Amino acid sequence: MTYSTLPKKTITIDKWTLSDIDCLAIGAFSPLSGFMVEDDYLSVVETMRLANGAVWPLPITLGVDEELHGDILPGERVLLRGEDGVNYAILQVESCYRPDKNREAELVFRTTDVAHPGVKKLFEKGNLYVGGPLEVLQRPVPEQFAEYYLTPVQTREIFECNNWKTIVGFQTRNPVHRAHEYIQKAALEIVDGLFLNPLMGETKSDDVPATVRMKSYLALLESYYPPTRVLLAAFPAAMRYAGPREAVFHALVRKNYGCTHFIVGRDHAGVGNYYGTYDAQYIFAQFAPEELGISLLFFEHSFYCNACEGMATTKTCPHEGDQHLTLSGTKVREMLRNGVTPPPQFSRPEVAKILIEGMRERELKG
Amino acid sequence: MTYSTLPKKTITIDKWTLSDIDCLAIGAFSPLSGFMVEDDYLSVVETMRLANGAVWPLPITLGVDEELHGDILPGERVLLRGEDGVNYAILQVESCYRPDKNREAELVFRTTDVAHPGVKKLFEKGNLYVGGPLEVLQRPVPEQFAEYYLTPVQTREIFECNNWKTIVGFQTRNPVHRAHEYIQKAALEIVDGLFLNPLMGETKSDDVPATVRMKSYLALLESYYPPTRVLLAAFPAAMRYAGPREAVFHALVRKNYGCTHFIVGRDHAGVGNYYGTYDAQYIFAQFAPEELGISLLFFEHSFYCNACEGMATTKTCPHEGDQHLTLSGTKVREMLRNGVTPPPQFSRPEVAKILIEGMRERELKG
Repeated sequence: MTYSTLPKKTITIDKWTLSDIDCLAIGAFSPLSGFMVEDDYLSVVETMRLANGAVWPLPITLGVDEELHGDILPGERVLLRGEDGVNYAILQVESCYRPDKNREAELVFRTTDVAHPGVKKLFEKGNLYVGGPLEVLQRPVPEQFAEYYLTPVQTREIFECNNWKTIVGFQTRNPVHRAHEYIQKAALEIVDGLFLNPLMGETKSDDVPATVRMKSYLALLESYYPPTRVLLAAFPAAMRYAGPREAVFHALVRKNYGCTHFIVGRDHAGVGNYYGTYDAQYIFAQFAPEELGISLLFFEHSFYCNACEGMATTKTCPHEGDQHLTLSGTKVREMLRNGVTPPPQFSRPEVAKILIEGMRERELKG
Repeated sequence: MTYSTLPKKTITIDKWTLSDIDCLAIGAFSPLSGFMVEDDYLSVVETMRLANGAVWPLPITLGVDEELHGDILPGERVLLRGEDGVNYAILQVESCYRPDKNREAELVFRTTDVAHPGVKKLFEKGNLYVGGPLEVLQRPVPEQFAEYYLTPVQTREIFECNNWKTIVGFQTRNPVHRAHEYIQKAALEIVDGLFLNPLMGETKSDDVPATVRMKSYLALLESYYPPTRVLLAAFPAAMRYAGPREAVFHALVRKNYGCTHFIVGRDHAGVGNYYGTYDAQYIFAQFAPEELGISLLFFEHSFYCNACEGMATTKTCPHEGDQHLTLSGTKVREMLRNGVTPPPQFSRPEVAKILIEGMRERELKG
């Protein structure tokens, strides 16, 4: 593409939007090929389906400042430029519309409370949505771990090379503690391969930073997972914290990466107390299995049980809670911040070490 | 039924045959409703299908002594009487035929070696097979644990009452050590309920007796399984040790009991070195999933791993064998015979205690 063909109108996009563009570019959000036009947007908000009926639970939209960009018209091409000055994509504008954000929040997040990080983000977005297909000029270059930013085409190729017929996807925005390891491995026992696909886009500020997490995943895999059975790849998307709807979204995206199965645990993609513990599992009952195209594996709360002398869930362990080793997120963060290694039944020591180092570096910087 | 209607010709049946009759009577061997006629027998031996094409991997036949019963003719009714003098059933004879037992052994057991307990049994059977539907007069009354001899109608009702939509069946002729517990619970994590369905019919003499096993299952469930998630019931059949073919048979039978999933581990229904470690998993590839009507869950060799600090399989643990706690059957039997409790990572102490007591009683008696 030569410079002369670049559109004159330019929208500056933040990192959050850039991660959406990247996911659209690589086909992670297939069948979407751009930001939603009004028909799709309204249909998704109201029915969790695109206007053509395909299941899609979350709006993927570009919200712009009406004062700055109120002159954009359908039919125009607009340049999407990063805060770093890089021209990332061109948007073929097909639809400009003003969303009802209260309605969107209510239906997508089940709350309009701006204390909810997804709702907060929604209301911070521009009030003019511009939709249409994208022409991608350049993929963002990750600062670290670039080799793990695989496209769905690449992951599917790897699955095929490994001769994996069945692959279970695991989404996480957190370090993998033993509870998650247990769930991943229980699922792996009945399929050919595990696709560990941590979300690397923007998360709320008290989540563990992506680079620290990536180091911890590598340490964990190195010591506790058979390399022939696991693929680690970054999921570039940002976190919405939309609970049940985001669980459906996460499943569909992993189907795009080539997974046949997807794990949904308790409070998947949840935050605070906005969603019931298993709402993100119940929501799948609204769709026919063939519409989803990926099999769901639902897991209950997992923990180390002293009486079982092993990892278990409320489904497989009959003992009272006082036998279970469970630590709250707050408690674990406090331990790590103070350089205290959680018990090995909670976290692998190799993982804890990296998280403690990460906390320390962050405090030195911050 | 009045006495006058009983046929005059009588065949005395052993316990092995009686267990087949019971399985036929309760519908565990559905679609079979009697001993195989020649067409079905030949088709099953050669193709693992009944003459009508339905998958069925094992001959279910009544072999009688030709000298004693050579006068039986198709069209006749014959009384089947137990060694205990009880009239258990009437056979409507439709087919009398002389099987090629070498061919049957070769195809069903993959060997004609009479050191194989299934082959030995086959050659001990009478050389005249009589087939036809059964009219059952009385179910055998188990000496112990009668309340666990549930029919498929009863187990399906229980599954429905429990609101279990997905149920995984587990077949065993052995005590449940931690390796099996791990596999059962890994499977249970992704379904609604576990159907622990130990085979209670005849097994080879060095297997742990059924009553001792039953006590050990009850002790295990009592201490380590949530009662709301497990149903224990006796599978009255005898063991064939036919490896791969018997795995298919075990799966189909559990479908009859109402299971949606069935676990096949390593060397399922195997004995000695007659079958490859995973042959009983590979065999299922010969059938379309809808022909089987039950989903298979294949598991690899499981063990406690010191480095993982937990149960795992060769699929989920990357460590060398020297980290794995594995004990041979011979070794464990020796320990139990000497009153030595295996490590808790191998056997639950509650289970080991019952097995040691069982060994002791057996030696006192025998």
